[in-house]
Amino acid sequence: MLVLFTDFGVRDPYVGQIKARLGAAAPGVAVIDLLHDVPDFNAHAGAHLLDALAREFPAGSVFLCVVDPGVGGPRDGLVMEADGRWYVGPDNGLLAVVGARAATARYWRIDWLPERLSASFHGRDLFAPVAAALAVGPFPEAKLADIAAPTVQFDAADLPRVVYLDHYGNAWTGLRGGLLGPAETLEVKGKTLARRAVFHEAAKGEAFWYVNSVGLVEIAVNRGSAAAALDLHVGDLVRVGRPAGGLH
Amino acid sequence: MLVLFTDFGVRDPYVGQIKARLGAAAPGVAVIDLLHDVPDFNAHAGAHLLDALAREFPAGSVFLCVVDPGVGGPRDGLVMEADGRWYVGPDNGLLAVVGARAATARYWRIDWLPERLSASFHGRDLFAPVAAALAVGPFPEAKLADIAAPTVQFDAADLPRVVYLDHYGNAWTGLRGGLLGPAETLEVKGKTLARRAVFHEAAKGEAFWYVNSVGLVEIAVNRGSAAAALDLHVGDLVRVGRPAGGLH
Amino acid sequence: MLVLFTDFGVRDPYVGQIKARLGAAAPGVAVIDLLHDVPDFNAHAGAHLLDALAREFPAGSVFLCVVDPGVGGPRDGLVMEADGRWYVGPDNGLLAVVGARAATARYWRIDWLPERLSASFHGRDLFAPVAAALAVGPFPEAKLADIAAPTVQFDAADLPRVVYLDHYGNAWTGLRGGLLGPAETLEVKGKTLARRAVFHEAAKGEAFWYVNSVGLVEIAVNRGSAAAALDLHVGDLVRVGRPAGGLH
Repeated sequence: MLVLFTDFGVRDPYVGQIKARLGAAAPGVAVIDLLHDVPDFNAHAGAHLLDALAREFPAGSVFLCVVDPGVGGPRDGLVMEADGRWYVGPDNGLLAVVGARAATARYWRIDWLPERLSASFHGRDLFAPVAAALAVGPFPEAKLADIAAPTVQFDAADLPRVVYLDHYGNAWTGLRGGLLGPAETLEVKGKTLARRAVFHEAAKGEAFWYVNSVGLVEIAVNRGSAAAALDLHVGDLVRVGRPAGGLH
Repeated sequence: MLVLFTDFGVRDPYVGQIKARLGAAAPGVAVIDLLHDVPDFNAHAGAHLLDALAREFPAGSVFLCVVDPGVGGPRDGLVMEADGRWYVGPDNGLLAVVGARAATARYWRIDWLPERLSASFHGRDLFAPVAAALAVGPFPEAKLADIAAPTVQFDAADLPRVVYLDHYGNAWTGLRGGLLGPAETLEVKGKTLARRAVFHEAAKGEAFWYVNSVGLVEIAVNRGSAAAALDLHVGDLVRVGRPAGGLH
Repeated sequence: MLVLFTDFGVRDPYVGQIKARLGAAAPGVAVIDLLHDVPDFNAHAGAHLLDALAREFPAGSVFLCVVDPGVGGPRDGLVMEADGRWYVGPDNGLLAVVGARAATARYWRIDWLPERLSASFHGRDLFAPVAAALAVGPFPEAKLADIAAPTVQFDAADLPRVVYLDHYGNAWTGLRGGLLGPAETLEVKGKTLARRAVFHEAAKGEAFWYVNSVGLVEIAVNRGSAAAALDLHVGDLVRVGRPAGGLH
């Protein structure tokens, strides 16, 4: 399975061009549009989203990951195998949270140039052919150089910021809910939010937080938009607190 | 064929996660994105849209229908077979207009829990596996309990309201055009609109109504946006009239 | 391969309905969503976009092209074979730039009516079945009448206007970069922009132009939106200049 994870958006012709290339190079391989709305140019938010979303996918899945404002510059192309899943993308940190948290991770630098390489669209010209080769096998040894670690690395820690706003207005954070106790509160934009198990436990219009379906702390409003109600944006800081006392 | 009908939006990672599950459980079955922009949380509008859109599809199609603000609460999961098509979704009215208008309809309550059930994403965890099972067969008897009727029912009557705004700004209503005479007018927001057969019969910029390609009364502006010109929103009331006299 | 190129948008149910028809009539043929966000009703911009984007695709590809504000009116349906690729759409100019620039082009008028033809959705009812027939073969002779040329023709010249705004805010023009010298500047909205090879060569926030990945002159801002910074819209005029002297 090839899984697409990009900031190319859903309405532009970029994804279609990539799929045409994948279809030619890896015919018959299923291609899943996981997310094309990673916050633009934001490899840091993207890295935390990718880690949360990729866990749902079986070993052997190949993720084509492109959030690449430095395209055409000196940054390298990267292949990573982490806990049995494969990732292809720029060496700019986008793959770094998955790598930092994986039990096992191996890395390769893309050491190959296609016949035609545009200056601005390596997703189509460079990363897609490598991802297709990984999906159909055998391992494209001649295109890759073993490296000990990527150039850009992030640590494994959670990110206490909003990393995604969905179309309902729910705000995903980079905090993993599994690490929190049941009674915690969440502070954001000067407001303190209580935890609910799920939407219908909150009053209509009430802002709350809960652990969403990919395991992240999410700020939501029952039948409304948390983004609008609390003026939330990607990058906003959040802080975990305890209902009875001081923040920690 | 598996047909997706949801309010998950086109830019969020929800649809991709569902497709990964469907691809694993029903490999080789075509998956069609029919609509992911059902008005958010609005099972009533969705029910009328679903009835109009599903008629285009052949018998045996399986519709995965998710507009589910009550997810995680007491509402049941529902399977319906109506006029040879299959539908899976929450028992909150979303399937009720199709059921009320069908010549024959049968119902089952989903009586099964997957190994991992998130609190907020039953589309992925509960409804997708059931839809996949229906698409590949045999009938998943052990997961379903025969019921006489769903809990939430709507009647078969038309809905004289705007139920969808498309990206051009055309406003679909819940009125079926086949029930109207050729000379009717339509009142909306205090304006009376004449009927045209199709866009190019209207003057550029003129607001009118016509029977759209799925059989619903639609308010439109030739080469413009009816939503902007008439300040239309989902839920706005419309009223059918006769050009020469009183409304009926 | 069937390639979709329309102004149907990504969130409406139009594309899904077309794909259901294509899946039934051309089972197993890959369908690529190239672009559904051609500027609404704008066959002129669409014609230039189509020419730039189609060049990436192999001979034998079948393009289903629908930007069709005159649907239901007197305009004909058109099939074109140009340089080995096939195109199906309205005879309103949408295919005309590809045709004018092709080394070889042949044309047919669609001379067939499906059993059910809606007044407003020929993309689904008329063009999709013809495109599916072309994709699976044999050539649907009985549905097509040989013609010498389409009714609406454009010339092969570049279009010095903005033809597309992508979701980052980059503005594509109808100028082909391959025709320009390396030192040219670009004037738009009273501003003179320098050329850069790619984004990271510009300062953060700097507006510039470059030749994009499909060969068109594009106006961009490094890590920002050119559309917002320069107030750009589809249709805006651009003018090529020489840095040292007069415009040409």
